[in-house]
Amino acid sequence: MRVAPPHIEYVGGILQIIDQTLLPGETVVIKLRTVPKLIEAIRALRIRGAPAIGIAGAYGMCIGAKAASGVARNADDFFKALDEAGAALSAARPTAVNLSWAVAKIVQHARERSDAGESLIRVVTSMEEFARAIHADDIATCRLIGDAGAALLSSGSVVLTHCNTGTLATGGYGTALGIVRSAWRMGVLKNVLVGETRPLLQGARLTVWELGRDGIPYTLITDSMAAHFMQRGEVNAVVVGADRIARNGDFANKIGTYGLAVLANAHSIPLYVAAPRSTFDSAIASGDEINLEQRNPIEVLEFAGVRVAPAGASAFNPAFDVTPGKLVTAFVMESGVLRPPYAQSIASFEFAQVAPA
Amino acid sequence: MRVAPPHIEYVGGILQIIDQTLLPGETVVIKLRTVPKLIEAIRALRIRGAPAIGIAGAYGMCIGAKAASGVARNADDFFKALDEAGAALSAARPTAVNLSWAVAKIVQHARERSDAGESLIRVVTSMEEFARAIHADDIATCRLIGDAGAALLSSGSVVLTHCNTGTLATGGYGTALGIVRSAWRMGVLKNVLVGETRPLLQGARLTVWELGRDGIPYTLITDSMAAHFMQRGEVNAVVVGADRIARNGDFANKIGTYGLAVLANAHSIPLYVAAPRSTFDSAIASGDEINLEQRNPIEVLEFAGVRVAPAGASAFNPAFDVTPGKLVTAFVMESGVLRPPYAQSIASFEFAQVAPA
Repeated sequence: MRVAPPHIEYVGGILQIIDQTLLPGETVVIKLRTVPKLIEAIRALRIRGAPAIGIAGAYGMCIGAKAASGVARNADDFFKALDEAGAALSAARPTAVNLSWAVAKIVQHARERSDAGESLIRVVTSMEEFARAIHADDIATCRLIGDAGAALLSSGSVVLTHCNTGTLATGGYGTALGIVRSAWRMGVLKNVLVGETRPLLQGARLTVWELGRDGIPYTLITDSMAAHFMQRGEVNAVVVGADRIARNGDFANKIGTYGLAVLANAHSIPLYVAAPRSTFDSAIASGDEINLEQRNPIEVLEFAGVRVAPAGASAFNPAFDVTPGKLVTAFVMESGVLRPPYAQSIASFEFAQVAPA
Repeated sequence: MRVAPPHIEYVGGILQIIDQTLLPGETVVIKLRTVPKLIEAIRALRIRGAPAIGIAGAYGMCIGAKAASGVARNADDFFKALDEAGAALSAARPTAVNLSWAVAKIVQHARERSDAGESLIRVVTSMEEFARAIHADDIATCRLIGDAGAALLSSGSVVLTHCNTGTLATGGYGTALGIVRSAWRMGVLKNVLVGETRPLLQGARLTVWELGRDGIPYTLITDSMAAHFMQRGEVNAVVVGADRIARNGDFANKIGTYGLAVLANAHSIPLYVAAPRSTFDSAIASGDEINLEQRNPIEVLEFAGVRVAPAGASAFNPAFDVTPGKLVTAFVMESGVLRPPYAQSIASFEFAQVAPA
């Protein structure tokens, strides 16, 4: 099997990504040399997936920092430019927390280096190292999530997943699809039912592409078929990712996730949500506070670039929905598994993170 | 607004239909002159919708009868040919009962006329009258269903529907969409959420086309968005059609219906199933006995000739699912509304039909 180019690579101050809108038909690497170009790529979903856009955001801040360091008269100028770039990047997709998290983290890191007396050139180099560390951490994190999640599955499991949460959506390996990968490696996976994930078909286009390359057995279904296979007893677990998780366990994810959660609950099928630490947003108490991105209705009116609905038709296109924590069997993190009640388990996890060593 | 040609018309021994696979892009009338041509049209969904294929099946039997009457040496020959045509037609789509119901009814009618001593030419003419009566009855039936269903809706209702159950799916007016039409006429309808209905997008292509022509407000959504709008309290009723209803109220309908039923139930939203008498199959006790058509996976892997999934991808494509009667708030028929327990209400209805006058 032909080896694909890396889907995210930062080389010589340029961010190279595979344009995911062209997959699986074409594997095209595009080179992003400015923050506005990256913002366009994120908005157009050339790169998508909460962890992946977090990593891209960190690299994007390096691109912004390099440009700012060349023209800034002083550190104040530099950080003003950095803050502007960070605000614009974070706004490119508002629902996933990872993007704004990575941007805030790398700016904080830059300030610390600058406050410690380093030159702007050194600060930029340090930011690049920091971005690479975020990227490497994400890959390691996903492997831990994958193994922890696979341990929850019984032998011969059929797993239903939604959207793309794999290599393409992360630094590599994947979150929910990381669980699938680990389950396959451990020999407990029988098959994956892949929801096609309308409107943009990330399941049909990207997840199927990844699973096919890895030789993992799968069957593609339309989103509307999930309930039917649950009813027939042919789904043992639903495994999804998350874009932002509130303190009570409510989480935002790709539109369609909430429906799958209700259906899984009605059929007594466990729902596992794979999410790295960076997906938990301690600033919000519940899903009510999550800003849900509304995308252009044209994505619903068309199918794979083919106009479907009549001229003048109107459509809604919420890109995400919010699933209440009470429908989640467990959150699978790099540090292990969180069980309900989430108000407590998430709080104790947060505490462990911020407690002094 | 331009008036469309009739979507089903029988003229001079030829069945003319609008090719629904080309809607909404093109309105093309095709002329069907033989039973095999009609079978191809039904299989390819050029005409679809349980009541509509029942009507087309009746007209198709007239085409078959005309051909047979020209070559049959006697009545036995004629009925042998008619039975063969009927069996082939009924098998074209096995799930909806209306097709086999109409075929059986018109053959029974022909036998009665023949047994009464009529010539084959007279029998054929009588069959044509009978087919036209089935067609006219369906339109009248749908108006009764529409009005009975609309009476169940409160003022300002937002109705969610699935697939196409409108004029195109019936003799005219529609079943579930007949309820929508009546509700709009009565002034109780605020909006219709139209599920696009993957894989073949009958909602996006056909229902949106019909509602747009009638000036009825609607918004198109992907099937995966239904739960989200239910969660937000923005759906007051789910209204769907049925392809076959068992004696206990279990019913088969377009894939995705079962999921909507579970979701409606979880959100305490009523589920109304619009169905003419001919959709009730007294021969089956429960949904377990319904033969669910599996269609070609290519419908999931591509749309309108555009490939979505990578080469070699595998997919499932069940065309229908079965919803347990216990999730149905009411069946809306031409003779009124059936409430649970359905084992009793359907039985008493059957009884009323077969009881002597």
